[in-house]
Amino acid sequence: MGGKPQVAITIGDVAGVGSEVTLKAIEGEIFSPPPLIIGDYAFLSEEAERLSLNLSLIRIDEGAPLPDAEVPVVLDLKNLPKRIERGKVVGEYGRCAWEYLKKAVALAKEGKIKAIVTAPVNKTSLHAISFPFPGQTEFFASSFGVSDYAMMLSSGNYRVVLLTTHLSLAEALAHIKKDEIIRLAKLVDKELKNRFGIRKPKIAISALNPHAGEGGAFGDEEIKEIRPAIEKLKKRGIEASGPFPADTLFHPENWKRFDAVIALYHDQGMIPIKTLFFDRAVNITLGLPIIRTSPDHGTAFDIAGKGIANPNSMMEAIKIAYHLSKIKVG
Amino acid sequence: MGGKPQVAITIGDVAGVGSEVTLKAIEGEIFSPPPLIIGDYAFLSEEAERLSLNLSLIRIDEGAPLPDAEVPVVLDLKNLPKRIERGKVVGEYGRCAWEYLKKAVALAKEGKIKAIVTAPVNKTSLHAISFPFPGQTEFFASSFGVSDYAMMLSSGNYRVVLLTTHLSLAEALAHIKKDEIIRLAKLVDKELKNRFGIRKPKIAISALNPHAGEGGAFGDEEIKEIRPAIEKLKKRGIEASGPFPADTLFHPENWKRFDAVIALYHDQGMIPIKTLFFDRAVNITLGLPIIRTSPDHGTAFDIAGKGIANPNSMMEAIKIAYHLSKIKVG
Repeated sequence: MGGKPQVAITIGDVAGVGSEVTLKAIEGEIFSPPPLIIGDYAFLSEEAERLSLNLSLIRIDEGAPLPDAEVPVVLDLKNLPKRIERGKVVGEYGRCAWEYLKKAVALAKEGKIKAIVTAPVNKTSLHAISFPFPGQTEFFASSFGVSDYAMMLSSGNYRVVLLTTHLSLAEALAHIKKDEIIRLAKLVDKELKNRFGIRKPKIAISALNPHAGEGGAFGDEEIKEIRPAIEKLKKRGIEASGPFPADTLFHPENWKRFDAVIALYHDQGMIPIKTLFFDRAVNITLGLPIIRTSPDHGTAFDIAGKGIANPNSMMEAIKIAYHLSKIKVG
Repeated sequence: MGGKPQVAITIGDVAGVGSEVTLKAIEGEIFSPPPLIIGDYAFLSEEAERLSLNLSLIRIDEGAPLPDAEVPVVLDLKNLPKRIERGKVVGEYGRCAWEYLKKAVALAKEGKIKAIVTAPVNKTSLHAISFPFPGQTEFFASSFGVSDYAMMLSSGNYRVVLLTTHLSLAEALAHIKKDEIIRLAKLVDKELKNRFGIRKPKIAISALNPHAGEGGAFGDEEIKEIRPAIEKLKKRGIEASGPFPADTLFHPENWKRFDAVIALYHDQGMIPIKTLFFDRAVNITLGLPIIRTSPDHGTAFDIAGKGIANPNSMMEAIKIAYHLSKIKVG
């Protein structure tokens, strides 16, 4: 039931809950072949003990071949200081988190792993050491030389993909353009087919304005940008529909009719997914040559080190990474 | 258990589901004193028969005094044509719906009723006859000479109040100003105290940008407008807090900590309320001298006349109107 690890988990910023949810998630479930945890072995084994987890880990050094294993393997970068201060912004922890990410990308490029699950990082700590990306998603896109990518949030078959992410709402408005919508819908269509095995994906596109603009009375983006994009997508054989008023689109009875919904700005997609599925949603990056997932929460500095972090979302992120990378079990 | 009606229900646009949900709602529940239904008796009694409802109605003419009654009273404006076409935009139906609204206001001004529940109208039909308001809420504000009013959506103790309503998102952004937030929070505080009997209302204010702007990285409205408004409100003794990132604020575990949340634009508040509570939410107008509620759905032309409209939201709207107007039962 063992094998060489094919899914890597980066433990993120050690001042946050990343290591805790990672260890709890892999204690709770048997993943086969076992995952590769990229982090610091001394820190992780102390953490597992502190959390009283019933968990065996084996350790390998950087550069060592991935072993056939029955239990999770820690790729030990030995980069952390002895004493970790929880809940604090520390540039050094950001630097370590970045090293875990770079190692994961290197292994993926060498063809050794098929999927990467990332525990949360702290953006302030990363920016303190001049990490040149808004977040991990953009780091992966850049590392793999990909410009056509997107952030999907999912819980079961409820999926939403964001047209714009970490921009002010005013800036996001400037990006709601026909060509961008077409680009994203094509990517979503392709990924749902290739990764998720959905033969003819149904893609809903949200409206921007109240009541979808009510015929132009409350804004014309629906008329000028969104509707023409949908018409063009349909001509290309993509089952796109909309624009649908955002307030009723995400009711589960509506949402479930589609394989994915395209939301036009961050909160438009994040409000429904977090309102309905907080602690169970998973972030999936579309467009990369590998699978990349992450839990849908941050470092949660307020509860870091207290042993009370909920590992559900991390557990889902790992399960989906295994599922989407179609790893043969056993 | 009877008495003179003190709650009026206007039946809205007769091409829509308004009369159906009204009749179903009052068949399903005993309201005491019975409500006054403002509409057309011939149409309503045919509708009740068509729906096979077990419902007695009595009829009064315009100008007649409200009677002591045990069953719902129809104030018969006799204004509808004999044959009604369902699901169609017809200016004449808009004119009739407007007459019901004007009658309700007149009765309220005479002190004869304490609350008005409005079935949905069709905006296109109303605009076809030059109804000079974006919707019913603005009609009531104008009729009562009120400029400081707001739209609240509620389901049980989950309440959200909208800072801006029927504007394009781009226009709404221009209205997210410190003074507007202060004005609205004061109104919400006053109404929650006076109408809802909440001694010290806890009011959350949503952020505008992703992650509440992440310290200014994704927009500065939180820093320039929202936070200063909250500071000022606190100094005035109002328990306002925020700005909270909108994507986690509306998770029921967070939302329930507050007596009301102020959302900054239409969909920010409507997405969570409709995603969680579709068909159960109620629209309540704050700031009027009377109570005004309505179901949280439109005319639903696609299912009008089919007998399948769900009366839950209308039933809730009527119950809340009775509850908030503190009508002594019996």
